[in-house]
Amino acid sequence: MNELETGEQSGIVEQAVRRHRGGAVESVADHVGQEWPVALVFNGISHAVMMCTPRDLEEFAVGFAISEGIVERGAHIQDIEVEFRDGKLPHAEVQLTVVQQAFVALKEKRRALSGRTGCGVCGIESIDLLDLAPERVPDTGFLQRLAPDAIAGAAKELPAHQALTKMTGGLHAAAWCDATGAIQYAFEDVGRHNALDKLIGRLSLDRVDTKEGFVFLSSRASYELVRKAARVDIPMVATISAPSSLAITIAREAGVRLVSFCREAGYVDYDTV
Amino acid sequence: MNELETGEQSGIVEQAVRRHRGGAVESVADHVGQEWPVALVFNGISHAVMMCTPRDLEEFAVGFAISEGIVERGAHIQDIEVEFRDGKLPHAEVQLTVVQQAFVALKEKRRALSGRTGCGVCGIESIDLLDLAPERVPDTGFLQRLAPDAIAGAAKELPAHQALTKMTGGLHAAAWCDATGAIQYAFEDVGRHNALDKLIGRLSLDRVDTKEGFVFLSSRASYELVRKAARVDIPMVATISAPSSLAITIAREAGVRLVSFCREAGYVDYDTV
Repeated sequence: MNELETGEQSGIVEQAVRRHRGGAVESVADHVGQEWPVALVFNGISHAVMMCTPRDLEEFAVGFAISEGIVERGAHIQDIEVEFRDGKLPHAEVQLTVVQQAFVALKEKRRALSGRTGCGVCGIESIDLLDLAPERVPDTGFLQRLAPDAIAGAAKELPAHQALTKMTGGLHAAAWCDATGAIQYAFEDVGRHNALDKLIGRLSLDRVDTKEGFVFLSSRASYELVRKAARVDIPMVATISAPSSLAITIAREAGVRLVSFCREAGYVDYDTV
Repeated sequence: MNELETGEQSGIVEQAVRRHRGGAVESVADHVGQEWPVALVFNGISHAVMMCTPRDLEEFAVGFAISEGIVERGAHIQDIEVEFRDGKLPHAEVQLTVVQQAFVALKEKRRALSGRTGCGVCGIESIDLLDLAPERVPDTGFLQRLAPDAIAGAAKELPAHQALTKMTGGLHAAAWCDATGAIQYAFEDVGRHNALDKLIGRLSLDRVDTKEGFVFLSSRASYELVRKAARVDIPMVATISAPSSLAITIAREAGVRLVSFCREAGYVDYDTV
């Protein structure tokens, strides 16, 4: 390959633009969020290509493997190598080595899907294969211990963790908050699902107890975001924008508290728990 | 199956919520956007499940088939049947009958992907399979004929076409505008790609010349949105929010003009043409 190997990426690139305002035009240097194809390879077999902001890719790969149910827990990932490849089409490849039982299960799942190609929902081509019956997250009493002003606090603090969004106006953030609403971790990505996967990956790598905190997302709440959070026993999902009908249904099924339109001044509770 | 067959859906559902504001809590009836699994079945073979707002599904299926390259043009779709199924998990199924040459090509493509399952980018599991070299859209002189205030006009008019967004705060819109910026069609969906597919489907069904107008999207600009527009020769993509780096790259490759942060007062031009 004629590709140049490159190192860590910042997540943004400089871009010459022309700003039109009224009749005036101004040529300026702006910044846009990096969107790269990122291939996820498990034990040598390419599994998926995600369009992703190429930073925190180790966290991303770990989070994806866990939130998509490829491994049960982070300890089942034995090795991760991230390669960046520049050139006409910059992209990255993450090689994961998972324990034999996870790899066998993945191969079985792939055999069951043989000859099919999925779309929309990860690798799913018929309604029967949709995972819409999540196990309930364990109730540890976290929601009772949550401070009354935790949501407002997280909403107030989030912008300070959105450095890339501030420069580009176009990324999503996923943050991990404790019972007081203080943000412990935050990740940004052009994709809201990727930002959540990066967060879940970091929580796993740091062995954080995911039953004792909540995620705060800059985006809307979709089926997939709630499903991913439920899979790692997160008791509450808070989003800045609106939820979909299926996000509410899945939150109720999984026993995850869902709150949306979260601002310093208030929020909307969908009574899912 | 024990499912009830149901009719057309509105795209929104009523939802009891509790609104927290300051210390006060108010129980009110609100509305949320419908997110349903929608299975797309070609000549009897299930191909994909998309999470989608279940209205305008005929347009959606036609647009998806065209923008994903399953059929070359709408005339290659011979029949479409939409079935709504209510019950614990409301979902819909769209049965498409496509001409033999398209079905053979789809089967060939599926055979090439045999034993693979895709994720992220529709059915794609390795970088080599990514379609990043679009053909250039034909230059008909439309961009020269575009009125100087067309973008501002579309930005001003769009909210009047976002009835579902107004009620839910959480859907995306894709609109088709003529050279003056007047909106001719608009569709809403929980997914930005779905909204664009619905629009492309309707343009095809009405035999609108897609080389003589532009799309105006309420969302950010991603790789996939620009790629879909390019596949049907749309000369310009305008978005309210930011573009990603790969959206700009693909727009340049395809000769599509990309403008973002489009408001009544101005916009940003990425000089892709």
